[in-house]
Amino acid sequence: MTQKILTYDSTLRDGEQSEGITLSLEDKLRIVERLDAFGIDAIEGGFPASNPKDIAFFQRVRELPLAHARIAAFGSTCKKGVAAADDQGLADLVASGAPIVTIVGKTWDAQVTRALLTTLDENLRMIADSVAFLKAQGREVVFDAEHFFDGYKANPAYALACVRAASEAGAHSIDLCETNGGALPHEVGEIVAAVAAELPGQRIGIHCHNDSGCAVANTLAAVRAGATQVQGTVNGFGERVGNTDLLTTIADLELKMGCSTVGPDKLRQLTSVSQFVAETCNMAVPTHHPYTGASAFAHKGGLHASAIARFPEAYEHTRPENVGNAQRMLVSELAGKASLVAKAASLGVDLAAHPEQAQAILDDIKAREAQGYSYEVADGSLAVLLQWHLGTYRPHFTLESFRVIVDDHEDTGARAKDAMSEATIKIHVGDERFVATGEGTGPVGALDNALRLAITQFFPEVAGMELVDYKVRILDENVGTGAITRVVITTRDAEGTWGTIGVSENIIEASWNALVDSIEYGLMRMGK
Amino acid sequence: MTQKILTYDSTLRDGEQSEGITLSLEDKLRIVERLDAFGIDAIEGGFPASNPKDIAFFQRVRELPLAHARIAAFGSTCKKGVAAADDQGLADLVASGAPIVTIVGKTWDAQVTRALLTTLDENLRMIADSVAFLKAQGREVVFDAEHFFDGYKANPAYALACVRAASEAGAHSIDLCETNGGALPHEVGEIVAAVAAELPGQRIGIHCHNDSGCAVANTLAAVRAGATQVQGTVNGFGERVGNTDLLTTIADLELKMGCSTVGPDKLRQLTSVSQFVAETCNMAVPTHHPYTGASAFAHKGGLHASAIARFPEAYEHTRPENVGNAQRMLVSELAGKASLVAKAASLGVDLAAHPEQAQAILDDIKAREAQGYSYEVADGSLAVLLQWHLGTYRPHFTLESFRVIVDDHEDTGARAKDAMSEATIKIHVGDERFVATGEGTGPVGALDNALRLAITQFFPEVAGMELVDYKVRILDENVGTGAITRVVITTRDAEGTWGTIGVSENIIEASWNALVDSIEYGLMRMGK
Repeated sequence: MTQKILTYDSTLRDGEQSEGITLSLEDKLRIVERLDAFGIDAIEGGFPASNPKDIAFFQRVRELPLAHARIAAFGSTCKKGVAAADDQGLADLVASGAPIVTIVGKTWDAQVTRALLTTLDENLRMIADSVAFLKAQGREVVFDAEHFFDGYKANPAYALACVRAASEAGAHSIDLCETNGGALPHEVGEIVAAVAAELPGQRIGIHCHNDSGCAVANTLAAVRAGATQVQGTVNGFGERVGNTDLLTTIADLELKMGCSTVGPDKLRQLTSVSQFVAETCNMAVPTHHPYTGASAFAHKGGLHASAIARFPEAYEHTRPENVGNAQRMLVSELAGKASLVAKAASLGVDLAAHPEQAQAILDDIKAREAQGYSYEVADGSLAVLLQWHLGTYRPHFTLESFRVIVDDHEDTGARAKDAMSEATIKIHVGDERFVATGEGTGPVGALDNALRLAITQFFPEVAGMELVDYKVRILDENVGTGAITRVVITTRDAEGTWGTIGVSENIIEASWNALVDSIEYGLMRMGK
Repeated sequence: MTQKILTYDSTLRDGEQSEGITLSLEDKLRIVERLDAFGIDAIEGGFPASNPKDIAFFQRVRELPLAHARIAAFGSTCKKGVAAADDQGLADLVASGAPIVTIVGKTWDAQVTRALLTTLDENLRMIADSVAFLKAQGREVVFDAEHFFDGYKANPAYALACVRAASEAGAHSIDLCETNGGALPHEVGEIVAAVAAELPGQRIGIHCHNDSGCAVANTLAAVRAGATQVQGTVNGFGERVGNTDLLTTIADLELKMGCSTVGPDKLRQLTSVSQFVAETCNMAVPTHHPYTGASAFAHKGGLHASAIARFPEAYEHTRPENVGNAQRMLVSELAGKASLVAKAASLGVDLAAHPEQAQAILDDIKAREAQGYSYEVADGSLAVLLQWHLGTYRPHFTLESFRVIVDDHEDTGARAKDAMSEATIKIHVGDERFVATGEGTGPVGALDNALRLAITQFFPEVAGMELVDYKVRILDENVGTGAITRVVITTRDAEGTWGTIGVSENIIEASWNALVDSIEYGLMRMGK
């Protein structure tokens, strides 16, 4: 049997509560389009009452041609002592035009009396009145039962009375919120089962937070106990430690629990959805993320690497293709010669013919990784290093010197005008010497411009190489500005992309080294 | 009842399999000392057979005066067709001198026949012979039952036969390994219960991976089913997506399951252990980590911020003090005026007296956060900004101009010599103009040196300010070297530490702005 489980995404509302995440209106609309294409059933867009950006969002989102997803507006029950029909917050929710309206209400007695500062009966009235009013306005109502699990532990009768009030008032779904993230799976399973028994036929949803490291497991436990709607956020973004990771939950439901959500075809978009949303949120793409992380199917131990070649299930719980990810073999001090030879072959370097050198190269890689290099992310630099060891590295150009000048004139740090950068490089190509000067807003951009100016005449292919990503990491950060800097550059041409790395105490030099490798490897792979 | 659960840390072995982690011998020894002080029962140090670093580790670790922890050496059962007494790997384990020896053995029939390429009976012989041999050498033997859960699902009788063989041969603990991370808590609970029923009186341990996002929950399910030893790694570092996070598991066991591990006093070290190990592994400290992350008790939503003041349990599943963390209120576009006023007060700025300006300041913060600023990590820059808005900002110095020159002479990127940087700044202090030149390996260090040279004579307190952390983040990385750069600097003096931020397309300018704020705020907080 395949049970259908509805997916409800809260990335644009709860996810934006995450420390470090701020989404523009355009960001939010782009995420809606991506989640719709992925097959998410409901997308919570924000609080129409909270800020102008969210009000504008609900206007703009109506113009998007969505294939499947339905939009939800989030708010709370009417205020105490106010009739739902007179409540401004509920009016804003209706005005948003969203087909789904999700309202949060209290279900923990202590929250009602100590935080909301009203009576238990008035809270029941607020819930029932608000749900009934919104339903009468033709909206599908989701009731978010805030603190339900803490509330049930403290006063099960009252917690159940709250959800019964919402159910009898016509809530389409009662979503039980594990608001503080403190419950464990066995508790969540028992309590959801109790609600399912209390409200037969009522759709029940689950909304968890990861404060105990169990959000996904709590969500799965709720589904096993009868919940049929799962709330979460992409990559688990959210307040404090985050919400249930909707992507991991979807993969577990589809691949391990025989449930149907987005379906197996769209499940292959899982990794790209994780990356798209992380980048749109300007958060680092989580590399060690279940299913979708770059490391999720990466094998470092030499022992694993050899076993997996014979027997993929040996160290993979599912095939990476199922979630749009890929298996990777990592080069590192733990990897054996075998993996290095295989890696070299994939870079067009035949190490098998030089077994005696493989060990020396492994030792050098190990020494360089200790200095801060990481060839796991820099195939291009690894290829250059391999050629260098084999004595087959033929640089297309050599540097005589470079000079970078950054000038700035300003009043004070708090109100800075733009600085200008100028880079002059002197290089040799064959017997020819060439001096070029490039400008840029930043010093690395200026160096890149100067280098391209200098060599494009000799190697026009360079014009087709685009620098698409530039990352800086300060290693051993606690030594301040004297720390080692690692620069990783990603370059793209018509044939594909490659990474190169530079490491130095000087960020300009580290960047230069990564730039040089990116162009040398780019020319190398064209067979120049 | 308080049940005692033994903690077994594998950070130095499985944790080092994590992509991006490479530990030096000294790193490993420092981590052992820290985990011992934290009260961990067993610390797995590595593979004596795998590399010279691990061999040296077991020699050096014997010299450490450990208060509580016992060291484990990791390896595998004897090779097929080889008697345990003649097996080099087992001899290396004995030679390590570690009081605990942990050996991994196969328990999944398909792994035996397809990866190990031997018979099911020979595998049983290898397990029993290896355990008995090591026990006869006076070692406490932990048997890691590799792929036990996949094995049990495929062939329960054989999987049980493997652990029975280890138990009858005298294994001190049988640790069931959820090697591929594919199992879910309900499965783990059922299977561990089956083993506990099969081997009454036998200590059972649990070792999980997080590939399904359920490692902690799987570990807790195993404890509920009878396991009394939990394996894991600090921060969940480990191959692929990582191992069970031992810190989260310990907190859940202590605070939510009535179990005893390190005890409530040492539990207060949880956050510092997370940070210490992350820094030693040269990994970013996980900010959204359960219990220990900087965001774990951070509140951003204005609604939450106001409720929590009245009722802390409102949005905290445990008190941050229990795990050595602290509650934080974040300034961001979602925060209301109330939180900004409170934040300002904590920085010695009285905004309550200027309510009309609070909104304008919130709007400016919102606009700057959209540009890439993040005042959540830069109290010093926030204080400067507040003063600026209130018209009370009195800069101690103003910049006329700076020029940074980076010179490099080299052959090629692959073999770089050090570049030198020189910075010349022209500043005004009161009516005095001062020109200073500083050198450094990197351009930012040169600027820092020049600035200190210029102003220390006017403000000797600056000599007491130490720049302790320098972080760079490229925002919107996919636009290459033209991307916005965010620099965050942490500065310390005798009174405490503070963060400042600079944002610019030019990394030098961004760094300069953060440097200026760090010194201005440092002087400001001294009441200069």
